Amino acid sequence: MSQQTAFEYLKHGQTPFFRLPSADPGRLADDGGVAAVILGVPHDGGTTYQPGARFAPFHVRRVSALVQSFHPCHRIDVFGRLRAVDGGNVVFPPFDRQSMREAVEGAVAGVLAGGAVPFLVGGDHSISLPALRAAAAAHGPLAVVHVDAHLDTSGPEVWGDAFHHGTPIRHALNEGLVAAGHLYQIGIRAQWANKDEGGLALSFGAQWVTADQVGERGVGPVMAEVRERIGERPVYVTFDVDGIDPAYAPGTGTPVPGGLTAREALGLLRGLAGTRVVGMDVVEVSPPLDHADLTCHLAAHLVYEGLALAALRRG
Amino acid sequence: MSQQTAFEYLKHGQTPFFRLPSADPGRLADDGGVAAVILGVPHDGGTTYQPGARFAPFHVRRVSALVQSFHPCHRIDVFGRLRAVDGGNVVFPPFDRQSMREAVEGAVAGVLAGGAVPFLVGGDHSISLPALRAAAAAHGPLAVVHVDAHLDTSGPEVWGDAFHHGTPIRHALNEGLVAAGHLYQIGIRAQWANKDEGGLALSFGAQWVTADQVGERGVGPVMAEVRERIGERPVYVTFDVDGIDPAYAPGTGTPVPGGLTAREALGLLRGLAGTRVVGMDVVEVSPPLDHADLTCHLAAHLVYEGLALAALRRG
Amino acid sequence: MSQQTAFEYLKHGQTPFFRLPSADPGRLADDGGVAAVILGVPHDGGTTYQPGARFAPFHVRRVSALVQSFHPCHRIDVFGRLRAVDGGNVVFPPFDRQSMREAVEGAVAGVLAGGAVPFLVGGDHSISLPALRAAAAAHGPLAVVHVDAHLDTSGPEVWGDAFHHGTPIRHALNEGLVAAGHLYQIGIRAQWANKDEGGLALSFGAQWVTADQVGERGVGPVMAEVRERIGERPVYVTFDVDGIDPAYAPGTGTPVPGGLTAREALGLLRGLAGTRVVGMDVVEVSPPLDHADLTCHLAAHLVYEGLALAALRRG
Amino acid sequence: MSQQTAFEYLKHGQTPFFRLPSADPGRLADDGGVAAVILGVPHDGGTTYQPGARFAPFHVRRVSALVQSFHPCHRIDVFGRLRAVDGGNVVFPPFDRQSMREAVEGAVAGVLAGGAVPFLVGGDHSISLPALRAAAAAHGPLAVVHVDAHLDTSGPEVWGDAFHHGTPIRHALNEGLVAAGHLYQIGIRAQWANKDEGGLALSFGAQWVTADQVGERGVGPVMAEVRERIGERPVYVTFDVDGIDPAYAPGTGTPVPGGLTAREALGLLRGLAGTRVVGMDVVEVSPPLDHADLTCHLAAHLVYEGLALAALRRG
Amino acid sequence: MSQQTAFEYLKHGQTPFFRLPSADPGRLADDGGVAAVILGVPHDGGTTYQPGARFAPFHVRRVSALVQSFHPCHRIDVFGRLRAVDGGNVVFPPFDRQSMREAVEGAVAGVLAGGAVPFLVGGDHSISLPALRAAAAAHGPLAVVHVDAHLDTSGPEVWGDAFHHGTPIRHALNEGLVAAGHLYQIGIRAQWANKDEGGLALSFGAQWVTADQVGERGVGPVMAEVRERIGERPVYVTFDVDGIDPAYAPGTGTPVPGGLTAREALGLLRGLAGTRVVGMDVVEVSPPLDHADLTCHLAAHLVYEGLALAALRRG
Amino acid sequence: MSQQTAFEYLKHGQTPFFRLPSADPGRLADDGGVAAVILGVPHDGGTTYQPGARFAPFHVRRVSALVQSFHPCHRIDVFGRLRAVDGGNVVFPPFDRQSMREAVEGAVAGVLAGGAVPFLVGGDHSISLPALRAAAAAHGPLAVVHVDAHLDTSGPEVWGDAFHHGTPIRHALNEGLVAAGHLYQIGIRAQWANKDEGGLALSFGAQWVTADQVGERGVGPVMAEVRERIGERPVYVTFDVDGIDPAYAPGTGTPVPGGLTAREALGLLRGLAGTRVVGMDVVEVSPPLDHADLTCHLAAHLVYEGLALAALRRG
Repeated sequence: MSQQTAFEYLKHGQTPFFRLPSADPGRLADDGGVAAVILGVPHDGGTTYQPGARFAPFHVRRVSALVQSFHPCHRIDVFGRLRAVDGGNVVFPPFDRQSMREAVEGAVAGVLAGGAVPFLVGGDHSISLPALRAAAAAHGPLAVVHVDAHLDTSGPEVWGDAFHHGTPIRHALNEGLVAAGHLYQIGIRAQWANKDEGGLALSFGAQWVTADQVGERGVGPVMAEVRERIGERPVYVTFDVDGIDPAYAPGTGTPVPGGLTAREALGLLRGLAGTRVVGMDVVEVSPPLDHADLTCHLAAHLVYEGLALAALRRG
Repeated sequence: MSQQTAFEYLKHGQTPFFRLPSADPGRLADDGGVAAVILGVPHDGGTTYQPGARFAPFHVRRVSALVQSFHPCHRIDVFGRLRAVDGGNVVFPPFDRQSMREAVEGAVAGVLAGGAVPFLVGGDHSISLPALRAAAAAHGPLAVVHVDAHLDTSGPEVWGDAFHHGTPIRHALNEGLVAAGHLYQIGIRAQWANKDEGGLALSFGAQWVTADQVGERGVGPVMAEVRERIGERPVYVTFDVDGIDPAYAPGTGTPVPGGLTAREALGLLRGLAGTRVVGMDVVEVSPPLDHADLTCHLAAHLVYEGLALAALRRG
Repeated sequence: MSQQTAFEYLKHGQTPFFRLPSADPGRLADDGGVAAVILGVPHDGGTTYQPGARFAPFHVRRVSALVQSFHPCHRIDVFGRLRAVDGGNVVFPPFDRQSMREAVEGAVAGVLAGGAVPFLVGGDHSISLPALRAAAAAHGPLAVVHVDAHLDTSGPEVWGDAFHHGTPIRHALNEGLVAAGHLYQIGIRAQWANKDEGGLALSFGAQWVTADQVGERGVGPVMAEVRERIGERPVYVTFDVDGIDPAYAPGTGTPVPGGLTAREALGLLRGLAGTRVVGMDVVEVSPPLDHADLTCHLAAHLVYEGLALAALRRG
Repeated sequence: MSQQTAFEYLKHGQTPFFRLPSADPGRLADDGGVAAVILGVPHDGGTTYQPGARFAPFHVRRVSALVQSFHPCHRIDVFGRLRAVDGGNVVFPPFDRQSMREAVEGAVAGVLAGGAVPFLVGGDHSISLPALRAAAAAHGPLAVVHVDAHLDTSGPEVWGDAFHHGTPIRHALNEGLVAAGHLYQIGIRAQWANKDEGGLALSFGAQWVTADQVGERGVGPVMAEVRERIGERPVYVTFDVDGIDPAYAPGTGTPVPGGLTAREALGLLRGLAGTRVVGMDVVEVSPPLDHADLTCHLAAHLVYEGLALAALRRG
Repeated sequence: MSQQTAFEYLKHGQTPFFRLPSADPGRLADDGGVAAVILGVPHDGGTTYQPGARFAPFHVRRVSALVQSFHPCHRIDVFGRLRAVDGGNVVFPPFDRQSMREAVEGAVAGVLAGGAVPFLVGGDHSISLPALRAAAAAHGPLAVVHVDAHLDTSGPEVWGDAFHHGTPIRHALNEGLVAAGHLYQIGIRAQWANKDEGGLALSFGAQWVTADQVGERGVGPVMAEVRERIGERPVYVTFDVDGIDPAYAPGTGTPVPGGLTAREALGLLRGLAGTRVVGMDVVEVSPPLDHADLTCHLAAHLVYEGLALAALRRG
Repeated sequence: MSQQTAFEYLKHGQTPFFRLPSADPGRLADDGGVAAVILGVPHDGGTTYQPGARFAPFHVRRVSALVQSFHPCHRIDVFGRLRAVDGGNVVFPPFDRQSMREAVEGAVAGVLAGGAVPFLVGGDHSISLPALRAAAAAHGPLAVVHVDAHLDTSGPEVWGDAFHHGTPIRHALNEGLVAAGHLYQIGIRAQWANKDEGGLALSFGAQWVTADQVGERGVGPVMAEVRERIGERPVYVTFDVDGIDPAYAPGTGTPVPGGLTAREALGLLRGLAGTRVVGMDVVEVSPPLDHADLTCHLAAHLVYEGLALAALRRG
């Protein structure tokens, strides 16, 4: 179940994540020892501005073939240490947001039940709520590291829907999926619709680090503090690529200038080394808006960094 | 209420269709004599493959500024003869396909009640059903000229939704909106999912002209025959730009090679001269997939040709 | 071994050609009844101008998911009638043109030995020579339908290599792979380096139909004549997408204005209905130069039309 | 006269800046209390390399719809506090640079006479001279914050014209529009044509901060110093987006690698909080060269930050 | 002075038209026997909509390296028969339309005085007037073959300038540069601003062939008639690439759907075989709007076809 | 032999590097005093992922016209002080990697023999080995400043070729071209295939500075240390643009997120001021993957910075 060589990869044409084996996530029990399952979630039915994220699983898979196994910072052979598989895409009627939520929650719960860590490649940010539900069901209230330009605590007022891609954190907080004081929102910077927009998150003790603050304080010190606060709590990472500056991640639907650099984004995840990551998603990659696969390459690296975190715990 | 000059257009920055005046379609009565209302429908919630059509109204408006008023073939001053306005976009909660249908049906009904001809710039093809409903409610069963690569008579089996963008013609036929024998499907060429796919349309007496047949017979003779069959029946034109070859209309979500040329597409509409057009839509223009505004320019010209048909009847 | 539904396809993420099953072409015997094997050949080591064709197998696979099974012109269910599989990519050290030729010849010979028809998605045109060698070894001298802007009978003088992508037809003729008088070169139009460039092909009785002639005579009559001349001879189709006009196929390395339209290209293949196609390749698709997947969609349709020819013989 | 909601915005299709009301800048007196007028200046007749900036007003308007009102750093509701309108585009014969200067000077003078602060969206940098003239006529010699890769003090020698887009600062200095010692040129880094190029600006006491220096010192400290020097002087901000690195602002005609980041650019404007901004322009946005609207989004944010400065003074 | 081989071309990096020698057009006398001079005119100062044509000479030169010498239709070695050189670009202060006209007229007159045929690569269409003036000064009133979507007989009313890119034919007619009844406008199709727009051209006996008519009648018969009417008159060809459909020529500033195909465009020029071409320009190629160099490749082929016409007369 | 003015440049159309004179590098002796020769190497035959670098010499030449002579940091007139010429492209049969190595080594040796410093614009990274061979032959073991995302010490195992673009440093080390302890690898960050990948470089005493470390320590201090270590040793700079972050340099074949910024890249070269640079290359620029010429502009500036280093030594 190790990664194929780059050369072998040429043979098959199909492009599983990171040249890993494919496996049915419903049959992990038959295949003991799978430690991580990567799932695509081709859904952009919750997008309020520019759609296209439904195609991210295909293109991130394609470019992920360039990623090698050995992590030169952590100095570990990620795929040697962590048995990871491509679990395919989560299936649901693509127009039905309710079905999406059920299917994603079920798929993530299945992975967790099989003892593996789920990694999701969205899709828009509305896919994170069911994943958080499943993770919290399995592990209790979570420390949530939420990288984003936006707070994602909107309600249904403007767009007439309670579950669009600007709402997952609001539901997660209100449903008790997040441990009090353990919502870490990093990279945030978008204007608010009004002065009350931040109130909900603050009332739950959210920790905010704006993109400017990451730049001023350095991503290392910022994450050291986060890591210390988190301790041994189970961590779910939800990484909206619009937390990153559009120069580095142009392929996204609601870009906001002034975000994280790619180095900060990767460093942010490396800074979680040692924590107990129980799930992760990378969302809002929109290939039709990308150029030269910039955003897809970056997303593949973000998933790889998350896998490395899981591998570190396998040490 | 005539068209501004190109120079005046520079003044305002905002870009109504064809540099026409803007008007609230709900108040046409106050503004007697409006003969045509152009409405944008920014919706791609019914798209099964590549979304993006929600942005067409903005970009088609922008490039429509290049269109002049005098039609050198029909030899009429279109906007001099036909009082046309930009009625803005139809509003609805963007995630709610049911609301979309209600809002579009209401808006089109309002335009018709005001004595004007509605022209819609989609949006994906799911916006056509409510427009057809309103038009048939006002005029009785319609002759429908349907330009498309696909038959658009799908059911909910594959995609789990009865009203996605591949279904409007199925509903229109089943709801009796189309006069028997007066569905003209032109440009069709996509493969079928199975041998029965064409059965529904044929059972209603649909007339098919493939893109190849348009090329072989010439668009003039093809349309002369259509025009004669239609006679004085009320005509609704629903123009999916994927009826046109992707070389001419790359900005569309489900492209099919081998379609109509731009000359054939424009000639097709000119060939309806003299018929009684009571409504028209141009759908499936997806600006994020376009290049050099090719598809947007073409869509603007298609709407202009439709307006010219209405103007001809005002002679 | 039938095609998955479009919906099922979403499940897997990996993207085999036309949503078909994957199969190891070396084990066709274990899987009796496979009638067609589609192979990717990711190679552009023979390209003299703009490379990039090595990525065609990945992108043509991706967009081929849109192709449905039932052919509305031939009125057959292609994948129902023809058991087809995705045989993966042919493997070889990517810098070694000699290895490429050996690997492709071996792979194609294996498919033929298993009783199936090989369909190759290149790669640049240098991949056709080994395929022609294998096909001629199995079937004797072939009728070769060669669609291209160029004659592809160059020698090593200019580029210092005997096997670059402008040479396959020269070798095929000189090696006796083509039945005398049965080289059909269609779509040709590029200037010649000098007045003698066409001499070799003519000396073997090549039949030339320029793109202009296709337009003037119509693709139907042109192909009826070709089909009649070919009769029951085994046919190999080598389709360089630069035979098509760059407006329809911009993603190619050596574009020449004035080529076939997409309708003509598809009609050309349909016009071979009834002939005995024993192999086919579609080459010179260069995704980095493509826009909105125009060329990839067209290439997928060309392969589908070839598969339909094989399916027709299975009737 | 407050900003529409995002949802309302969908209704109209036309796209005024920031979803603000449109108003005729010549009638501000009728509409008491307008505090800021945003004008488009579609002109690139002064461009020496790549034109296209004439289209910026249209595209910056379009993407500005994503900007919300509440500024999370300054903690003010910008459009609630500052009555701002879209004043349309400034009109002039597009080939006549003299007419452009007259029209822009007139329009800006009119806004100033109405008691409002003018914000211009160019257009190339040649539009800034008439705006500076009007601002200095109203307020006396100005502190000018000039963000740019270039000094823009060229003369007519090379390009044969005294008013091309590389000359506005030269004229502003020579015409006495800039208070001595109060030209702040930030982001500069382009090579000089010869060793004397910087002489003119230095002779007027220009303060230079290169992009490298902004990175080394931090934008906060840099701007604190600028802000202190400026004091209560009237400030005009002329922001050429090529001051920003082309990675963040690819859509510009004369890109120079090594510029400001988006965070620095936004921070630069925030660092002027408290100063008396009497006018601002954002120039050299060239949409035809942009990708994924990166530069247009950034430009909209720059204008928003300028409006926030004006709003802060309304506190 | 023959063309370099493709291989030699790699050596130099600089990219003269068609790999031809460079020569100073002012010194043709020193270099007896030059029969054709190709000049670039990097000017788009007369463009009313999307600029960018100033870059065409650079990019058309670059892609022209792919063009070979032997013409397979005319069966002549073009560059063997016709001594052609790259005369560089015409120089003038880029903002000064008056200087442009003087410089182009001087350069073309110089080429004509040296006994060679001038071929211009624009630049926008305003460059054609001075070339027509020089050609008419040398040869008397000309037969003008004008390929375009527009009549180009506008006046200064709308744009406030008498010499913008929509005016060259108006001036040419009024200045007597065109032989009565010998203006051939082919490909025209744009709407008119008003019913009188065509009056001027008709009053001079212009012959119109719309793009539709070219399609219906065939380019061969159309041009046979043109050729016969022209007889031995001196011919100037002014080829605006927007005469061609934007699918084939997307890189142009004022695209109009429904134009000529590339085959028709090339056939149009081939149809002038035997006439006495005394000058030619290809204008309105805008590389920033192009994709995959489609328009640049086509423009290079158009110039090559023009050179072939000159070569045929050298037979 | 000074640089042309920008205006003169318009005259010629051909585009030598930096508007410099062209000269045959084989005849430098005839043209005494040439101090630097810029050579293009249009080769991507060693590329393992995305090719296209063969076109870099053409496009970098084109955009280099924007670079001016006077360096505002070093305060020297680069082209006034350093007689530099465009030596054209190095010629070799493009498919033959062995011929490439011979031709490049010969060309570089010739430049060095003529007393000038060679500057190469690749091409992929495989072109650096022969240049290093020639430089070491002339100057002895070199200090090598190697900017890259990758170590480039791969062997033939994966790709079946000993000289692909991932191998030049391995050969350089093994062939003794690098002075012990004087390989400076800056910007490195790519994952390794396995834990041993870094072993070879370390065994030769390579100094590594990752992109993160450049950010943390600052490029100034990093380079001060490098400069001090190097002292008066002859320096060869091999600059793979994928050392830079893909946001700044999207036009490259094997992008790795998290790289150097443009400011760091330029500062890195400025930090070598005072060292004895005896050769330099800029490689892996792939124009087909670029946007808005971002990568080409940056590459031109990198070469300019290298030329400035040579000019500083001429002081």
